[in-house]
Amino acid sequence: MRQSKLFTKTLKQSPKDAVSASHKFLVQGGYVDMLMAGVYTYLPMGWNVIRKISDIVRVEMNKCEAQEMLMPALQSRGIWDETGRWDGALSDVMYQFKDRSGKDMGLAATHEEVIYDIVRRNIMSYKDLPFAIYQIQNKFRNELRAKGGLMRGREFMMKDLYSFHLSQEDLDVYYDKMIQAYKNVYAKCGLDSKVVEASGGMFTEKYSHEFQVISDAGEDNIIYCDTCDYAQNSEISKFKVGDKCPKCSASLKEGKSIEVGNIFQFGDKYAKDMKGYATDSDGVKKPILMASYGIGISRLVATIVEKYHDDQGIIWPEAVAPFKVHLLSLKQNEEAEKYYKILREEGIEVLYDDRDISAGEKFTDADLIGIPFRLVVSSKTGDKVEIKKRDNDKAELMSIEEFIKKIKE
Amino acid sequence: MRQSKLFTKTLKQSPKDAVSASHKFLVQGGYVDMLMAGVYTYLPMGWNVIRKISDIVRVEMNKCEAQEMLMPALQSRGIWDETGRWDGALSDVMYQFKDRSGKDMGLAATHEEVIYDIVRRNIMSYKDLPFAIYQIQNKFRNELRAKGGLMRGREFMMKDLYSFHLSQEDLDVYYDKMIQAYKNVYAKCGLDSKVVEASGGMFTEKYSHEFQVISDAGEDNIIYCDTCDYAQNSEISKFKVGDKCPKCSASLKEGKSIEVGNIFQFGDKYAKDMKGYATDSDGVKKPILMASYGIGISRLVATIVEKYHDDQGIIWPEAVAPFKVHLLSLKQNEEAEKYYKILREEGIEVLYDDRDISAGEKFTDADLIGIPFRLVVSSKTGDKVEIKKRDNDKAELMSIEEFIKKIKE
Repeated sequence: MRQSKLFTKTLKQSPKDAVSASHKFLVQGGYVDMLMAGVYTYLPMGWNVIRKISDIVRVEMNKCEAQEMLMPALQSRGIWDETGRWDGALSDVMYQFKDRSGKDMGLAATHEEVIYDIVRRNIMSYKDLPFAIYQIQNKFRNELRAKGGLMRGREFMMKDLYSFHLSQEDLDVYYDKMIQAYKNVYAKCGLDSKVVEASGGMFTEKYSHEFQVISDAGEDNIIYCDTCDYAQNSEISKFKVGDKCPKCSASLKEGKSIEVGNIFQFGDKYAKDMKGYATDSDGVKKPILMASYGIGISRLVATIVEKYHDDQGIIWPEAVAPFKVHLLSLKQNEEAEKYYKILREEGIEVLYDDRDISAGEKFTDADLIGIPFRLVVSSKTGDKVEIKKRDNDKAELMSIEEFIKKIKE
Repeated sequence: MRQSKLFTKTLKQSPKDAVSASHKFLVQGGYVDMLMAGVYTYLPMGWNVIRKISDIVRVEMNKCEAQEMLMPALQSRGIWDETGRWDGALSDVMYQFKDRSGKDMGLAATHEEVIYDIVRRNIMSYKDLPFAIYQIQNKFRNELRAKGGLMRGREFMMKDLYSFHLSQEDLDVYYDKMIQAYKNVYAKCGLDSKVVEASGGMFTEKYSHEFQVISDAGEDNIIYCDTCDYAQNSEISKFKVGDKCPKCSASLKEGKSIEVGNIFQFGDKYAKDMKGYATDSDGVKKPILMASYGIGISRLVATIVEKYHDDQGIIWPEAVAPFKVHLLSLKQNEEAEKYYKILREEGIEVLYDDRDISAGEKFTDADLIGIPFRLVVSSKTGDKVEIKKRDNDKAELMSIEEFIKKIKE
């Protein structure tokens, strides 16, 4: 992609309400554009990042034999009345309004009711179970105060997965498998996640876990051990800072954290509320148990930036970077065009700064945008190119062939 | 994919309000599930079809150097007041409501206002132009009466593209390029499209074209020539059935048609309403011209089924089929499992009917679902498999290797 054709510009000013690095750099770098508080456009580079993370999520969900589909955002009131959530737990956060014919409508903040309605009409026996489905799409929450860029949105991108079982044992097995899948997703995104017991919340009173990433930009507080994986929500923990870790005896720490995932066991709540039953292998009618598993894809973008940045801008981990290489031409367009062509032919994703602006502006933008490999072509580089990793100060000269070999390793 | 794990079932009953083949077969075949009139879940097989069509669209849009991004569904009133469409052209079809703080909100039926707001803040000179961006996402329309399955929805999937130019000549060039790209999309989906001059409509009074596919399930009427590509909307045509085609002198026909795309030249309307100007190469301030280009992805699914079906079910064109091969085991699971493994290792998308039901039920479902190649393994097929194309009555025996060679040709 030619940077001259990337229609949005980097911004010198950070958004006036920006308190976090992710909010500041995602807006200034041209990744997102705010329509109103908590509602953003994912600009082409931001959309690239969203797609990379979504594909990481898809691989892990598919490994757990979950099927992808897509449910609607528009909701009819009926199914939500069955579970009491229209007037209950979701009445505050669900956008609710009337259509032209005066019928109550809502916008989905979650999809348990929709999926369970499909399941009760399709699942008849143990032969159909267990199974899991998921979707990736925008969700809506009627937040009174939305702020922090992609951290807490009114419209935000989620992966939500729902699994169905005929026994608690079967549900437990899948739930544990999903915990591992979630850890894999975060690890591939360069994040170290802690699994903590959730303290309830609006969606369920049952068994539930949160995935937390330690970060000063977080809204939660956890007590955690950085020697082992022990962690608890500060609100419900009986331990405090300095206490010995119950698992490994190291000294416990406390810190702010970002919730990047949340999983729930609903057990037979939906079977009871919405009448979902199937026969087991003995012909006995049993409730269809459900669990839900959510990852905030857009929040994950922000979380990654919170962890990977410096004063100049973003430092994307390679797996989620919008491009792998940032090629800068310092008035050497003939050479640079040649390298741009070679890199693309090799299937390497490259952003090519072909703009007629100063070297200083190009370097500043490159640091802000944060693509892993910066590749400079100037009058000083001769038949070589200057390579610098975004997370490293050392630059080195090498031929384009050597570079391609290096990054394909 | 094992059919035993495909959690939704085919249905014996067609939806009670179904008048069109696409509505009937997409629901009965397990492609979509209705939440309310005009609002559907795309079930796993339906989602497969949506993805295939979306990827065909992406290839053609990318060829026209358009960039993909994603704009939000939630809309703030302000930008829509600038163009007068909040109370005007879109007040009926846009879902409009208030959020918790009493602020006016809408759900996007289209995105001209959002994209133009981004453009006026980013595009400063001729160097930034022309350019085009697009997105694929669900749109919303507050329809009083939604019916016909995916044909006219309250929530439906669209590809919308917006192009920006500094001169009418430049806009015309891109507009023509896009007409060709649209024709390519429909052709790849197996549809013969007619380009007709549009008769206005709610979005614009300016230059506009519709893409129409002849079908009895359509809501529009066109006068067309089936010898050449001449066509006009019946409402505005000065010709009638039997008249000579003005292009090739063949006899004109009249027929119902489905609108599968719509493109508009807004000219400088948005530049005037929303104040979007850029300097040309002489330093003169000029209006940034805009055109919009829409394809209804979900309506396209229905249109394809209207054209490709018989009394038993759907007959998917290969390019958009949810799977390429439907493998049916008639009590020969050992052999079938082997073939299932081989086909998947060859990268062929296969739905494997491993269910413990009668041969008759399997054949009926295969015809309903409509996957291009049916492959039967029974006690009669020996070390071969029986191949039948969905659009052909002739079955033939061949080895699995011969079959793989054949479909990879």
